Amino acid sequence: METIFKHRSVRKFRPDPVPAAVMERLLLAASRASTTGNMQLYSIIVTTGKELKEKLSVCHSGQPMVTEAPAVVTFCADVHRFSRWCEIRGAKPEYHNLVWFMSAAIDTLLASQNFSLEAENQGLGICYMGTTLYSAEEIIEILDLPMGVIPVATVALGYPRELPPLTDRLPVEAIVHYEKYKEYTPQKVEELWQDKEASEETARLIEENGLPNLARIFTERRYRGEESVVFSEKYLNTLKKQGFI
Amino acid sequence: METIFKHRSVRKFRPDPVPAAVMERLLLAASRASTTGNMQLYSIIVTTGKELKEKLSVCHSGQPMVTEAPAVVTFCADVHRFSRWCEIRGAKPEYHNLVWFMSAAIDTLLASQNFSLEAENQGLGICYMGTTLYSAEEIIEILDLPMGVIPVATVALGYPRELPPLTDRLPVEAIVHYEKYKEYTPQKVEELWQDKEASEETARLIEENGLPNLARIFTERRYRGEESVVFSEKYLNTLKKQGFI
Repeated sequence: METIFKHRSVRKFRPDPVPAAVMERLLLAASRASTTGNMQLYSIIVTTGKELKEKLSVCHSGQPMVTEAPAVVTFCADVHRFSRWCEIRGAKPEYHNLVWFMSAAIDTLLASQNFSLEAENQGLGICYMGTTLYSAEEIIEILDLPMGVIPVATVALGYPRELPPLTDRLPVEAIVHYEKYKEYTPQKVEELWQDKEASEETARLIEENGLPNLARIFTERRYRGEESVVFSEKYLNTLKKQGFI
Repeated sequence: METIFKHRSVRKFRPDPVPAAVMERLLLAASRASTTGNMQLYSIIVTTGKELKEKLSVCHSGQPMVTEAPAVVTFCADVHRFSRWCEIRGAKPEYHNLVWFMSAAIDTLLASQNFSLEAENQGLGICYMGTTLYSAEEIIEILDLPMGVIPVATVALGYPRELPPLTDRLPVEAIVHYEKYKEYTPQKVEELWQDKEASEETARLIEENGLPNLARIFTERRYRGEESVVFSEKYLNTLKKQGFI
């Protein structure tokens, strides 16, 4: 499974469309992922039309890759389809609550990762877009999502025009705890972040941003607290509106 | 990537432990998954000790596979480690809100799926346990999880003692929508569920449960509405307690 170890986010795509047979295989890969009680609580919206991609691009901070990518794939938590089946069968579905939103989100993300890995295995490139959480409300409008359906992740998909280098990661020991959680001492933090902070990339970012360190670039430039509070309120409202809470 | 297409949930394990080098590879696979702003907002707790596994097993409805599996792997959304680093660097982290819980949960699940697929690729078997959402509070206690950390998914891991057949899935067209969401007409629902409802497995379940159809087995036996409401309340409280909402 070398594909897993070669993942990089691709943000520049060739215009070639994804052949239907290839797309079918990625969707089949998605459908083979583990799913809560085999309920498959997700829907995958594959958007390739120019006009719709342009509308979606606005939801993703206007990133040019959204219109450049031949396909924009929106992965949605979906308790609607299962509930429709239940209703038609005279069963009373009760899936509009937090646990089912989370179960559906889990199903959705395991499917999206299968989809993405199989895409990379087929020579395609992908990029996940976190902006989906900020613009769920607008995406619902654009893609006609009914109650019981909410976007969780979006993947830009296409053949890479440019393959960036692998991104650095914290050493594996940073993310693992054996038996129980071990608290991070200040000394441990120094050790774990040492390589990242000493990198040329970090030096360049510090220079560009005029800030004393990488952590402050995160909190003061990339992801500002005020914004995340606003977006949290917005996603919560959308969860309510879609009937999940 | 044949591994993706061969996934089945394994619930019976041989006692052989997972060799350290293999475990290290699975964790490395996890760390290569896409992650929000390269922040890696997750922690992976690998529990192999008999006593702790027994305690965790109670959290997972006492399923015997939890104690039988040589390793129980709890995947947690974690904004704590990143916040520790920020604090030590004089940056003000503001990651205790819904958007960051969701971003961290996304990171966590993409990592857990990489981990699981690489495990299967190495000849191991896995089973995701949805019970993690019901018992997050108790798992936090058992694994010493600090504020800013919450379990999202658990994987039982080990060499399979028994390899069950592939599980059926809805036809791929059930989960995909081209361009925009298409509503499911009653006729479409009939078509999509036809094979599942006509299977021997379904006939057996209907016989066993004494109910007229599969949908009612879901709503009246497997996942009852009252329970999901109680568990939703509980997970919401745990999110608050851990500082996410």
